[in-house]
Amino acid sequence: MKLNPADDALAQSIRNSLGDDVLRPVAERYVEEPRRRFSGHVGLLALPRSAADVSTLVRLASDAAVPVVPYGGGTGLVGGQVMPDGPAPLLISLERMTAIRAVYPDENVLIAEAGAILADVQTAAESANRLLPLSLAAQGSCQIGGNLATNAGGVNVLRYGNARDLCLGLEAVLPSGDIWHGLSRLRKDNTGYDLRNLLIGAEGTLGIITAAALKLYPQPSSIGTAMVQVSSPEAAIALLALARDQVGEGVSAFELIHQQGLAFLSEVLPDVRQPFSTQPEWCVLIELGLPVGSDPSSKLAALYEAAENHDLVGEAVIAQNEAQRQDLWAVRENIPEANRLIGSVSSHDISIPISRIPEFIRRGADIVAGFGPFRINCFGHLGDGNLHYNVFPPIGANRSAFEAQRHHIKRAVHDLVHTFDGSVSAEHGVGRLKADDLERYGDPAKLTAMRAIKTALDPQGIMNPGAVLK
Amino acid sequence: MKLNPADDALAQSIRNSLGDDVLRPVAERYVEEPRRRFSGHVGLLALPRSAADVSTLVRLASDAAVPVVPYGGGTGLVGGQVMPDGPAPLLISLERMTAIRAVYPDENVLIAEAGAILADVQTAAESANRLLPLSLAAQGSCQIGGNLATNAGGVNVLRYGNARDLCLGLEAVLPSGDIWHGLSRLRKDNTGYDLRNLLIGAEGTLGIITAAALKLYPQPSSIGTAMVQVSSPEAAIALLALARDQVGEGVSAFELIHQQGLAFLSEVLPDVRQPFSTQPEWCVLIELGLPVGSDPSSKLAALYEAAENHDLVGEAVIAQNEAQRQDLWAVRENIPEANRLIGSVSSHDISIPISRIPEFIRRGADIVAGFGPFRINCFGHLGDGNLHYNVFPPIGANRSAFEAQRHHIKRAVHDLVHTFDGSVSAEHGVGRLKADDLERYGDPAKLTAMRAIKTALDPQGIMNPGAVLK
Repeated sequence: MKLNPADDALAQSIRNSLGDDVLRPVAERYVEEPRRRFSGHVGLLALPRSAADVSTLVRLASDAAVPVVPYGGGTGLVGGQVMPDGPAPLLISLERMTAIRAVYPDENVLIAEAGAILADVQTAAESANRLLPLSLAAQGSCQIGGNLATNAGGVNVLRYGNARDLCLGLEAVLPSGDIWHGLSRLRKDNTGYDLRNLLIGAEGTLGIITAAALKLYPQPSSIGTAMVQVSSPEAAIALLALARDQVGEGVSAFELIHQQGLAFLSEVLPDVRQPFSTQPEWCVLIELGLPVGSDPSSKLAALYEAAENHDLVGEAVIAQNEAQRQDLWAVRENIPEANRLIGSVSSHDISIPISRIPEFIRRGADIVAGFGPFRINCFGHLGDGNLHYNVFPPIGANRSAFEAQRHHIKRAVHDLVHTFDGSVSAEHGVGRLKADDLERYGDPAKLTAMRAIKTALDPQGIMNPGAVLK
Repeated sequence: MKLNPADDALAQSIRNSLGDDVLRPVAERYVEEPRRRFSGHVGLLALPRSAADVSTLVRLASDAAVPVVPYGGGTGLVGGQVMPDGPAPLLISLERMTAIRAVYPDENVLIAEAGAILADVQTAAESANRLLPLSLAAQGSCQIGGNLATNAGGVNVLRYGNARDLCLGLEAVLPSGDIWHGLSRLRKDNTGYDLRNLLIGAEGTLGIITAAALKLYPQPSSIGTAMVQVSSPEAAIALLALARDQVGEGVSAFELIHQQGLAFLSEVLPDVRQPFSTQPEWCVLIELGLPVGSDPSSKLAALYEAAENHDLVGEAVIAQNEAQRQDLWAVRENIPEANRLIGSVSSHDISIPISRIPEFIRRGADIVAGFGPFRINCFGHLGDGNLHYNVFPPIGANRSAFEAQRHHIKRAVHDLVHTFDGSVSAEHGVGRLKADDLERYGDPAKLTAMRAIKTALDPQGIMNPGAVLK
């Protein structure tokens, strides 16, 4: 359908319905995204105060056939939040809808509005002596609505699942403007099609999430954290299996780190304390979270001993206190920033069936070497099969010199992922960056079904056009 | 759209495409369902051997505008598998598609065809030293495809989630006849709309699941099981919270049992060994599954001591060996059979926000008492907020005397559930039994969206017409 730009007439309708307070001038940040691959344009910026406001905005946009882009914390890495072309959209930022509407500690449920910053939701859960396990690098600025719209992952997926798995119910405005009141606190509810999971991960193309009922967990009574050198990715996988045999679901995080990441930290973030005197080729960050009466340090020591008997591990550092634990996490959490400072030629958020990861890493290195002496920083959530596989220029070179190769490298890496039955979008979403990939690698029957669903729920195509589906 | 009955012409097309082997005579069991609330009719019965066969069958039915009813183990309790009126459908039974296609112990993944019996899938996982946690009373005859189509629950949802949570990927035939090849083994995959969760729980109205990639878990190293008297539902909830504080995710099952269930066992299944000399008003069955190096008996003893200090519990039986464990489970697992033998006036598979369950139980008793001296057997998966709330005739009476009251009792109980923000279909699905309830209690925006999705994917309305959506 032909869409129109968000213009003065729409602005006037919005003011008439919602007053002068909802429309705001468009600041720079609303048209940028972190990796600067896209820059957007915006016709009107609206900051609704309630689901009712969102409903009115969507209805007015629908009446005027104006595209709508939902905007969360703006931290998305695939351009889902910026519309670079087409008629200038109405951007709806959820930033004023930040309330924690309710906490039910006895039920392990919290209800937050979509604009709540993830870290604030974590804090609200902590105040009730509960854990919201969703945890990722952008948690200080990303919003829970965006986390759900993109089905965010992070470091605790291994144990607790991704954003999808942590959501019991949603309130959302559908493309018609109708509000779906689906804030269920129920663990089991088989009444009809799973609209919740359809909206989660749809990246704002099927509606706007305005609030969510989230699953909480007991706070682990004690936490143990270690950084362990492993001889190879195979050894890392074997160590994970051993850890899960010994500690069950107590394994909260299992992050693979390559020497390249440690070297980048030395190069651009030298204040980050390195765990080992010599940077190992591979190491893993393991975290255990255990209930009352368990001693994570002794569990880690026992695990290490068993792993040594299997020749899986080299040197290890077990955090002796919270400060040391923070130091170990700082290594992992600063790698994305180090990557950003170095400047990647091409970044890939991929997942691979876990048992095939070692082979993938070998084959990937061969393929990238075919393009030139690039450096690869391959790291991430090994327990989920999710690697951040990022390709960097040779030492001393700048990524700008390799712009022409970027597309070819990305294509080659993604083709390899596809032959390994993997995914070219593990946790960051499709957005606009990977809409072509979805068409290239997606199952044809699924794509046809997706298009039918999109047309059924959003016949004018006003919701975040160009994201996910081209 | 107007549909046609499955007739000789369709039979001939099927034989032409798939040979003489796929169509079979219609045995009695294909038109019955366990509670005998519905009896179906069938035009043709097809037993496909592969997803390709299913695709051909659906395509031929679509061309002829003939309704299709997918048939699993036939154990569903809401009439989703029987079509009582309208043009006689093509029934597609998955019973010949029983292969375990692959097991990946290192990845904790198993791929099973839809017709595999749940118990056989459990056994295949066990053979690889892994656990498929889906466990429910019908596991000896229900099929994994049906479990997924209805998003089945069972006794381990508290720890491992329901069927939805145990599925990584699907192969399915969509209403167009297209095969969706979505058997992902990935833990993270954000490439497009969540078609998997849309098909799960859609009860065959959006397509036919032909195979599934399922999540496995490590086998718990040791299991501890206890039956504990509690003073009230409130005490049971407090005991659950205490157990989760002390044992974390190690709590695998937490089942509430009412005196009425124990009394029914005495009445109609006297061979089932009762745990207590005097039947308590309320008791719970707790099971812990723990990793290497943990002793569940001592954990249960410590939990019991802590619960005693909080005045939550009375007498308790901790199983000392596997035979005693089986005895305790036999109590829980025979209650549905005892219910069946007694014959309920009305059965309700409901869920309630956990903290409101005690109040619901009190209010429910008052409401049912208003209809007469009925007996209530309220039991089930307390940890999930999922109660089986079944209403029985007074002692000495038969349910047939109360047929006229059934609808009114059901309505009153469901209305109460709705005012408690609960669900009238927790784990059994909607089927045909609760399609009216869905219209009565469902969110209007969600219902509109569901209808739009149904029409988009199945424009002729051939897939299981009358189930879920009227």
